Amino acid sequence: MGSHAYKICEYDCWFQAWGTPDISPSLAGMLSNLRIEEKGEIIERAAAELRRGLARGFGISAGSKARDQETLVGTIEHLNTALGLSLPSQKPEGFVLQVTDTRIIVAGQDPRGALYGVYRLLFLLRLGKITAGTHIAEAPATSYRIINHWDNLDGTVERGYAGKSLFYQDNRIKYDPRRIEDYARLLASIGINRISINNANVRGAAKGLITEAYLPEVAKLASIFRPFGIRLILSINFASPCVLGDLAAADPLDPAVASWWKEQTDLIYRAIPDLAGFMVKADSEFEPGPFQYGRTHAEGANMLAAALRPHNGEVFWRCFVYNCAQDWRDHSVDRAKAAYDHFMPLDGGFDENVILQIKFGPYDFQVREPVSPLFGALLKTRHIMELQITQEYTGHQIDLCYLPWLWEDIMSFDTARGPASRVRELMGRSIEGLAGVGNVGLDQNWTGHPLAQANLYGYGRLAWDPGLSSEVIAHEWSVLTFGDTEVAETIKKILLASYPIYEKYNAPFGICFMVNPGIHYGPSPEGYEFSKWGTYHRADRRSIGIDRTPAGTGYTEQYAPQKAAVFRDPACCPENLILFFHRLPYDYRMKNGETLLQNIYNTHFEGYDEVKAMIDTWMGLKGNLDEGIYASVLSRMERQLENAGEWRDVINTYFRRKTGIPDAKGRVISG
Amino acid sequence: MGSHAYKICEYDCWFQAWGTPDISPSLAGMLSNLRIEEKGEIIERAAAELRRGLARGFGISAGSKARDQETLVGTIEHLNTALGLSLPSQKPEGFVLQVTDTRIIVAGQDPRGALYGVYRLLFLLRLGKITAGTHIAEAPATSYRIINHWDNLDGTVERGYAGKSLFYQDNRIKYDPRRIEDYARLLASIGINRISINNANVRGAAKGLITEAYLPEVAKLASIFRPFGIRLILSINFASPCVLGDLAAADPLDPAVASWWKEQTDLIYRAIPDLAGFMVKADSEFEPGPFQYGRTHAEGANMLAAALRPHNGEVFWRCFVYNCAQDWRDHSVDRAKAAYDHFMPLDGGFDENVILQIKFGPYDFQVREPVSPLFGALLKTRHIMELQITQEYTGHQIDLCYLPWLWEDIMSFDTARGPASRVRELMGRSIEGLAGVGNVGLDQNWTGHPLAQANLYGYGRLAWDPGLSSEVIAHEWSVLTFGDTEVAETIKKILLASYPIYEKYNAPFGICFMVNPGIHYGPSPEGYEFSKWGTYHRADRRSIGIDRTPAGTGYTEQYAPQKAAVFRDPACCPENLILFFHRLPYDYRMKNGETLLQNIYNTHFEGYDEVKAMIDTWMGLKGNLDEGIYASVLSRMERQLENAGEWRDVINTYFRRKTGIPDAKGRVISG
Repeated sequence: MGSHAYKICEYDCWFQAWGTPDISPSLAGMLSNLRIEEKGEIIERAAAELRRGLARGFGISAGSKARDQETLVGTIEHLNTALGLSLPSQKPEGFVLQVTDTRIIVAGQDPRGALYGVYRLLFLLRLGKITAGTHIAEAPATSYRIINHWDNLDGTVERGYAGKSLFYQDNRIKYDPRRIEDYARLLASIGINRISINNANVRGAAKGLITEAYLPEVAKLASIFRPFGIRLILSINFASPCVLGDLAAADPLDPAVASWWKEQTDLIYRAIPDLAGFMVKADSEFEPGPFQYGRTHAEGANMLAAALRPHNGEVFWRCFVYNCAQDWRDHSVDRAKAAYDHFMPLDGGFDENVILQIKFGPYDFQVREPVSPLFGALLKTRHIMELQITQEYTGHQIDLCYLPWLWEDIMSFDTARGPASRVRELMGRSIEGLAGVGNVGLDQNWTGHPLAQANLYGYGRLAWDPGLSSEVIAHEWSVLTFGDTEVAETIKKILLASYPIYEKYNAPFGICFMVNPGIHYGPSPEGYEFSKWGTYHRADRRSIGIDRTPAGTGYTEQYAPQKAAVFRDPACCPENLILFFHRLPYDYRMKNGETLLQNIYNTHFEGYDEVKAMIDTWMGLKGNLDEGIYASVLSRMERQLENAGEWRDVINTYFRRKTGIPDAKGRVISG
Repeated sequence: MGSHAYKICEYDCWFQAWGTPDISPSLAGMLSNLRIEEKGEIIERAAAELRRGLARGFGISAGSKARDQETLVGTIEHLNTALGLSLPSQKPEGFVLQVTDTRIIVAGQDPRGALYGVYRLLFLLRLGKITAGTHIAEAPATSYRIINHWDNLDGTVERGYAGKSLFYQDNRIKYDPRRIEDYARLLASIGINRISINNANVRGAAKGLITEAYLPEVAKLASIFRPFGIRLILSINFASPCVLGDLAAADPLDPAVASWWKEQTDLIYRAIPDLAGFMVKADSEFEPGPFQYGRTHAEGANMLAAALRPHNGEVFWRCFVYNCAQDWRDHSVDRAKAAYDHFMPLDGGFDENVILQIKFGPYDFQVREPVSPLFGALLKTRHIMELQITQEYTGHQIDLCYLPWLWEDIMSFDTARGPASRVRELMGRSIEGLAGVGNVGLDQNWTGHPLAQANLYGYGRLAWDPGLSSEVIAHEWSVLTFGDTEVAETIKKILLASYPIYEKYNAPFGICFMVNPGIHYGPSPEGYEFSKWGTYHRADRRSIGIDRTPAGTGYTEQYAPQKAAVFRDPACCPENLILFFHRLPYDYRMKNGETLLQNIYNTHFEGYDEVKAMIDTWMGLKGNLDEGIYASVLSRMERQLENAGEWRDVINTYFRRKTGIPDAKGRVISG
């Protein structure tokens, strides 16, 4: 296979990455004759994408001569009307994909549906799943499938590990349009339909992005994404009326402020008429917000919503609000409670075009934390869930960490509020979608670590279908990328093993935040222990953890009663979260009969050993995949091994020193 | 006193800061008639400085009409010859200061001596120490009285806490020439005679400072310092032949490298003929050096020395060489041993114009660490001692920390090698001077914290006279700055109390490095515990500290036998260093009969309380000194109190959690 170029390195899409799969002559015949009769930016793009994908991924040149075999691409309505078909109507963005002996039909409920249908066809061809008789009808479970870029205008990317920004350089919008188009393709192919293009922390030059200084360039960028069905979101600074206008304050109830936003929003929409809206990080980690004027977040968000409403724009209002100047001595304050405490009382107070964006857990994208109690509880407020695709706490795209593994757990979480109360069941109902902090930068392979592409892929797939298992996703991505080979099968297994491995050598049992401050890479058991960020474990010589039961901070009571009862009782609480909810002595017996401390030792020794085994497995692939990918992954795995060794030894030494208790199995722990 | 301007804020010199002291009519008469007959840049500057100082500090206009009262300024040789005086010869840079009923004579051994004599006259007038009959003969104890600037060409200052660089902006040499002249005056008045103008870490644009791109501007800067008797030093990058030239390597034994340096040095000296030489940080914290070519530091330094010798230039070669990629698990490696291990074997191998620059202690300017064993031991190698005036580990010029208190301890340290073996007795003998990392930036009051000026003042005074007590220095600076008042007396006391207070709430008993990594401000008990920097305390539930006796790393044996014996035995070891040299259980009995742990608790409670008391004392000064200085100091003291509270509580909590032992006096320690 060494003769094939590694096409992902050439900015191309998953389904064209690697090798050329066999296509039956009959399918090839149908695919060679593409008919499309509709006009429109997106529908034409759908046809073009099919042509391009067939040419590059399958060596098929799709002409449009009338023959007895054909592929039709269009909207359901048009195809039914023009060709007398009777394709059933689908939900928005949905599609029908039918294959008969002579005809492939890709029919979208709307042009975007047709585009998604085309990509699905290409994926399935590659997965070997298209045969005569294939009949698929699909629509995305959720309407909001968003990527958030934390890109700064100076070209840096906050928590970015794949090179500089795709969009900015030296405080200017500057990009390679071909690369952006490739990126739009990458995203559209997995169903992404909105993208915020600047950091939620809107600082420096970024504050001006919503002004005429930048809007013409933003509009050009929007026009690259538009044919792919992707609308832009702009992160805005709540203090803009003071920063950009000449108002003395940004009080949301001040009519002058509302009027400033209205005018500015009108201006923005003249440049980008289909802007999806504003993302706002307010009163969070030093960003300005309504609190400083004594107003609620509902008052703040609704004021912006009013400005956006005439344009069908929406406010994506982040719920990452907590006291980041906390006193570590004060055991009564619990950061985990903050989002619920802030937003639950406001339920029902937000306007129709305000969408709360809630991080999946109460902290901040930790390796293991519970699902936020806001999900399932918010009933009268629109909201979406925020995930982090970029590996801030999960190894900086140096360590391999396949995130759909975690996301599957999140989707399986039962909020226990009413029937069908699992997160995946709420998706498309109370939870209207996902926002994911992107992991892509200027690195040629998109994501730094080649295998970290699977996280972006999986994110899009899950936003589309929250019922997908992480194994199915890993299989899809591996086969799309490496072909239907032994290599893909091995890589799938490596991906699936990677999250548990990372979790084993990281902070133990849901304790969170034992990372080096600021950089969030590598172990520092007390790195955040005396900080203002509100993230403590309070380990002493006897015990560790925060009691979040009613005897402690009472965080458990933010959950539904049935759920609270589970978390409240160490015997029922999932062990991977036991130190999140409980303060336990080191000699606490875990379910395997060994002590908590011994379990900490065990998992950390095992995590390291499993990284070693993973490297052996990877080295077994040598010669069977592109040498560049092989070497790139191997060099990162070697850094991961070093990192895992640091984690193992620092964590184990930390507890060894604290407790004085050696490893029961006699393994060496440094004193 | 509120009517007086705060002149230090106007970039003026200490002795003109505050108020106008009374001068007797007879002294005023003599001072009003200044005679100077010699020509020369420095001697004329001496006269000009006297005129300026009298006018601005004393309201005396020094004309030059012949009268029966006069002040003579000149060199001893000239005055003896021209006026038939018989002034005794002095050591270089020395002076005679004589006052009779009709005449004041300021006679320098050389022009610089006359300049120093003039400043001494101004200081003493202000201190009220000049009367008829005054007869002083003085010369500096050391020849090298150096300020090192860690200024980067982008305008930042590494470890600078007083604003941006005086010299650079946006990778250009850019300064206010008036400000630089004021700075030169400030330094010359306390005897500084050399200044390195760029960071020892020579990175980015700074690498080009020794090229024609910058040399004309460097030469202009040199010409401002020159009349004040101050010569420039340039920090150079050892890899320059590769970076600036087109050589593939910088091997010091390669004739092409030596020849490159010779030519480059000739070029530099054409621009600045009196350049004092090069400062070199080689093989240290990622800087290039001779090690990478398998050469010794002697070979590296001597190669540069050869290039400098024709120009009377010298190499200032830093001894801050250690393994900064250490494995914390490896208890056998001891960073404290590095400088001695590297340089002692090379004693005698350095050329005549190489001067080793050795940090005062084996670590890195910690609040309390022992004096480096190299002092007293190096017998055949020229060397100076490096101090840090900027408050990297001592509170960032937010916390008040009067450093001459520490420096007096250093000067009093007995190396126990031969007779007169105290550091202050070696000064001017084996230790040829001091290099101090400066604490001055663009802040209008020079040093950020107004009282941090006393550290710069004290540094210069100590380099001149290592026998001065920190109390005398505090008295001088306070009276020069605030006049001979109650205020000055109170401020002197505040200064003298400040170091012990800071030490009390910092890392206990010489354990060092319990600071936040990188920034080096605020407590982080395990901030460096698992790092690569080689600075560990290895506290566990029973004990803390590094055993540096022969039973441990053997660091004690780098000292003279008598000294080693003292450090080796916990019962003899000074208690403020006891955890530097020994690993001790928390119940170790200290000399006061209380345990080590209880002493840690005590000092940390006391340190905080003493900051509070200091603030009360400062507030008692309100109305008696300039409101701006009062408020500026008060606001910093309030931040210091907060900082001291963090130190107290973090350190005490850390040990409380580790040991499980509460404070014997029942004070509250957070769990």
